Amino acid sequence: MDLPTLPEGYKIRPISKTDYSNGVLETLATLTTVGPITQTNFEKVIEKWHAHPDIYKTLVIVDDTNQVAAIGTLLIELKLIHDCSNVGHIEDIAVNSKHQGLKFGKFLILKLIELAKLCDCYKVILDCDVKNQGFYEKCGLKTAGLEMEYRF
Amino acid sequence: MDLPTLPEGYKIRPISKTDYSNGVLETLATLTTVGPITQTNFEKVIEKWHAHPDIYKTLVIVDDTNQVAAIGTLLIELKLIHDCSNVGHIEDIAVNSKHQGLKFGKFLILKLIELAKLCDCYKVILDCDVKNQGFYEKCGLKTAGLEMEYRF
Repeated sequence: MDLPTLPEGYKIRPISKTDYSNGVLETLATLTTVGPITQTNFEKVIEKWHAHPDIYKTLVIVDDTNQVAAIGTLLIELKLIHDCSNVGHIEDIAVNSKHQGLKFGKFLILKLIELAKLCDCYKVILDCDVKNQGFYEKCGLKTAGLEMEYRF
Repeated sequence: MDLPTLPEGYKIRPISKTDYSNGVLETLATLTTVGPITQTNFEKVIEKWHAHPDIYKTLVIVDDTNQVAAIGTLLIELKLIHDCSNVGHIEDIAVNSKHQGLKFGKFLILKLIELAKLCDCYKVILDCDVKNQGFYEKCGLKTAGLEMEYRF
């Protein structure tokens, strides 16, 4: 599926430590509980991600004032199976409520799939609610199985 | 759920580079395609895993001759959401056909859940075929959603 063009004024780039002031946590809060994350703790996470650049790849779409409009992560897992291949895990796709309706969710999915291909992944997987199945099918994904969880 | 005791002669330990000669690939082949992995490529994967000890945790159950009877991986993902929490991903649980019927699959799941708790994960997730849903429920997991995939 071809990657569409972003609307004028928007661009996509890797997340940076300075995005704490750019609305990244507010964007993630549209997805789930974020919690009271301090700037120090935010920067620690970004530093840890950047210390493993082959594993964590988080992209943000920002507007012309550098405010985060959407975010998504590709986690790259090296496996032994499939001849020592990589699998890409798409995680935590969120679109800021001020920037809805611009298809940023689909853009991020397609961009992260493209990135996974560049990183030699043999497949990309993600977990979703049943109610979002149709959206991901429109992004070219197919149902592969069940997500099971154990919460502490 | 309490961790059962392993049968006499068996123990659980982290995977090592020397496990190439101990039947680890034959064990994984009960799960899916493994491919013609050379000793050099096997060792490269284990080296990369061991270079990221906070992320990749692969355990093997071995018998009293050090042959791999079962294998399973916990991949620990650091997130921003849930107050900068970790999520544990259980991957590639396989039991060697010579060591079936000893509940090693369940043992590994419980051991990796215990390990995830020690590593401050707020939850553990895994993807499975619908036909294995009952097995994972017996291990204490609940259905949480769908796994979607895109294959290259």
